[in-house]
Amino acid sequence: MTLPTRSSKSSTAVSDGVFSLKLGFIVDQLGGQLFGSPDTNISRLFPLARAVEGDISFLNHPKYLPQLESSLATCVVVGKLHQAPAVKRGSCIVTDHPYAYWAKLTQLWVSQQPTKLFPQIHPSAVVDPTAIVHPSARIGPLCVIEEGAKIGEGTWLKSRVTVSSYCEIGNHCTLHSGVVVGADGFGFALEDQRWIKIEQLGKVVIGNHVEIGANTCIDRGAMEDTVLEDGVILDNLIQIGHNVRIGKHTAMAGCSAIAGSSTIGAYCTIGGGAGVLGHIQLTDHVHISAYALVTHSISKPGTYSGMFPIDEHAQWQKNAVSLKQLHHLRERIRSLEKNNNH
Amino acid sequence: MTLPTRSSKSSTAVSDGVFSLKLGFIVDQLGGQLFGSPDTNISRLFPLARAVEGDISFLNHPKYLPQLESSLATCVVVGKLHQAPAVKRGSCIVTDHPYAYWAKLTQLWVSQQPTKLFPQIHPSAVVDPTAIVHPSARIGPLCVIEEGAKIGEGTWLKSRVTVSSYCEIGNHCTLHSGVVVGADGFGFALEDQRWIKIEQLGKVVIGNHVEIGANTCIDRGAMEDTVLEDGVILDNLIQIGHNVRIGKHTAMAGCSAIAGSSTIGAYCTIGGGAGVLGHIQLTDHVHISAYALVTHSISKPGTYSGMFPIDEHAQWQKNAVSLKQLHHLRERIRSLEKNNNH
Amino acid sequence: MTLPTRSSKSSTAVSDGVFSLKLGFIVDQLGGQLFGSPDTNISRLFPLARAVEGDISFLNHPKYLPQLESSLATCVVVGKLHQAPAVKRGSCIVTDHPYAYWAKLTQLWVSQQPTKLFPQIHPSAVVDPTAIVHPSARIGPLCVIEEGAKIGEGTWLKSRVTVSSYCEIGNHCTLHSGVVVGADGFGFALEDQRWIKIEQLGKVVIGNHVEIGANTCIDRGAMEDTVLEDGVILDNLIQIGHNVRIGKHTAMAGCSAIAGSSTIGAYCTIGGGAGVLGHIQLTDHVHISAYALVTHSISKPGTYSGMFPIDEHAQWQKNAVSLKQLHHLRERIRSLEKNNNH
Repeated sequence: MTLPTRSSKSSTAVSDGVFSLKLGFIVDQLGGQLFGSPDTNISRLFPLARAVEGDISFLNHPKYLPQLESSLATCVVVGKLHQAPAVKRGSCIVTDHPYAYWAKLTQLWVSQQPTKLFPQIHPSAVVDPTAIVHPSARIGPLCVIEEGAKIGEGTWLKSRVTVSSYCEIGNHCTLHSGVVVGADGFGFALEDQRWIKIEQLGKVVIGNHVEIGANTCIDRGAMEDTVLEDGVILDNLIQIGHNVRIGKHTAMAGCSAIAGSSTIGAYCTIGGGAGVLGHIQLTDHVHISAYALVTHSISKPGTYSGMFPIDEHAQWQKNAVSLKQLHHLRERIRSLEKNNNH
Repeated sequence: MTLPTRSSKSSTAVSDGVFSLKLGFIVDQLGGQLFGSPDTNISRLFPLARAVEGDISFLNHPKYLPQLESSLATCVVVGKLHQAPAVKRGSCIVTDHPYAYWAKLTQLWVSQQPTKLFPQIHPSAVVDPTAIVHPSARIGPLCVIEEGAKIGEGTWLKSRVTVSSYCEIGNHCTLHSGVVVGADGFGFALEDQRWIKIEQLGKVVIGNHVEIGANTCIDRGAMEDTVLEDGVILDNLIQIGHNVRIGKHTAMAGCSAIAGSSTIGAYCTIGGGAGVLGHIQLTDHVHISAYALVTHSISKPGTYSGMFPIDEHAQWQKNAVSLKQLHHLRERIRSLEKNNNH
Repeated sequence: MTLPTRSSKSSTAVSDGVFSLKLGFIVDQLGGQLFGSPDTNISRLFPLARAVEGDISFLNHPKYLPQLESSLATCVVVGKLHQAPAVKRGSCIVTDHPYAYWAKLTQLWVSQQPTKLFPQIHPSAVVDPTAIVHPSARIGPLCVIEEGAKIGEGTWLKSRVTVSSYCEIGNHCTLHSGVVVGADGFGFALEDQRWIKIEQLGKVVIGNHVEIGANTCIDRGAMEDTVLEDGVILDNLIQIGHNVRIGKHTAMAGCSAIAGSSTIGAYCTIGGGAGVLGHIQLTDHVHISAYALVTHSISKPGTYSGMFPIDEHAQWQKNAVSLKQLHHLRERIRSLEKNNNH
């Protein structure tokens, strides 16, 4: 999908300080079948349950169907399955994938808004003269770009982002505030009970269309590089150790972590707070639930979990105490079984 | 409680570079019953066990009573319960709530110290001209305040804090170094195995008297806002997802996280490293223990836990192996019971 | 070990933009027994399996022995155990501790490279005039050094590091981007269901040869100081609470956390994502596995673990459900045993 550039099309309007788009313009740009007047103005994107007149909303899951019926939204984006009740209610756009359509609508919305001009490289950013920043990249306030680093076409470093020496960020990436790309990996050798630092000689290489959340850290490689392939999306406060490789279109939720030298396949999802120990391989299409720790390589696609179920404290405590006896309980069962067989 | 402004009262003194307050001044300001001379000078707040002459200390729990008896502190803040041993020992201040009294004493202490003048907005901070910063707010070095953001009365951004576009911080808040308010929420729609970004159109709204610890991240809402109500306190390295609402006077310890669209009630506590999955509701007065993951809504106040108990490695390993057989063990027990009933 | 300063020795060479060191120079500086020509040039440090001509590599574990045989590396650092196959293959350096040797080689490598001159204090850093920065210390871009802080000899703050008022960093430390030293500890007293802030009057004191990873936070003490002893190494995104003391040469992996007022001994290791609750003591030589939560003091050296084993989701779910019945299962076993004894 190619989004239109900001334009002076008559379908975009700002009146009384309120920005709006016409339904006709939306379906012109994004497709979908419009039921209702193309001249209707939309001034806000808002959730179904609390939308009011002038809002556009979407329905993605049948469980929200009751909200559709009572919603005051001017227009609703729905799938074919919900066309009938949506048309009955008022304006709607019918599409195969309402949620993906909605994502594109948010992008169209932002792209059409009158925005002020930003300097491409904010004067407060510290950019080494040997760094190579694409002319269309945008470097926000108080970023640090060290020597030899490369920032690709259309990439946006929000503010207070560090890209360390010789690290490479691809095209059309977004790095949020506080991100640190290319700090030293955690490499030390033990000698006489002291830690001797291993200088980290690799770098970080990040592909295209990668998004990295606030305060996330991606360490540089020890000798080889740490690599994030195209389309990887990382949430906030994530830790990526040295020499890690993350396959294309893999998503990681907040506070998750990959320890050094592990390889994550493509199309994986790593839940919030989940971790992967070092020197492990995950094949493609592996899904790790929140708070699970991956302790061995996984070669079979699927969903993997490992989290102590939450309970009322007193109940948890009883079970936790029993858990410390579990191996012993197992032996008692074995002994009972033996007796029973006599 | 209204704290006195910095004053030239004779009760405050700096001699030989040592700042001190008189006991009489302290009880004038904070109340409590003083046993001992109001002219006694206090030059440090210090723990009971290691206090020396000139120090003031406090006793909050009976288990530290032996420390009271042997303490060299010049004065001790105690509850009525410990008045007798405290008076027997030397100077003391008796109050209903020694720990709250102590908190106020730390504030009085800081408020009375001769401090140098700071610029309200540090010249190295990058503040957008359209941002609205209250004249009494203090913006530390290398902060970024984006367009349309609002910073309330008496609020202090320590250093290297980002407040993104249109986010609102209330009055008398403290944001520590590295905090990121208003980075994009983690919203993407999957289409043909690729992630399509959902532009995050909401903002963050933070109430009054909120404290946010170092490197904590609070994401902006997808459509509606992410909200922290009055009196919320957050420790370091916490992740708050988009559309989350946290009720008043709730406290969250370090490294905890709330995933998108969850609502936390008022007067809750979330332990260190604990998490709450997305789209979950916690009622008021819910307490989550450290390292627990909340996977369903909780409508009954109380304490909830879920954490694998720590053990010596070999013992843990035996139990962990047995745990993977637990469902099977349960069936073996059932079978034994059936046999027994025959 | 004293490393040579950058020199114009003929053993260092840059030709055609490729930096190289001679094998003879390496063993002159670091010791070890060289098999092969001292005039051989090394232009890269690289892993055994993917090394090519001109590379030096190392073998640290017998399981990589097959890689040694097929490696194209020009020289390999090995222990005495692997001298025979290494010599058979080509050039090698034999040493008692190949991994520690390798660490020193990375340091030698970096120390010999022609590097550009950095300003000791980057002009974009905000350093309070009352801070004491050793002339040999290096303060990177956009760091904040507050009043009265001390930075020791040869210490390097990479970029965007905060060292708060009166905190002290020892000699030869490295602090990576985004580190926050000396934010307020999380201290609040509860009164009438509201949190009253306890001003944090202590500071942070960090010893010599300490390394602190990106976005890690170390809070200042409430009254006494938070202390990191000599040789402590911390990975990224770690949280150290107020009043904590960490003993010398202890290592903590990414995303781990120590809550307030706990004491960690010397020579400990804390695994990734592991935590220690507040007011706990760990003796020396305690090793905590990844994702374990330490809930009580540990006085016996050894390895401790506590983590729910990961499993396929359906299998995990069955066991997790059974776990919530574990105490009840234990009672059923007891009852079966009683019946059996009749």
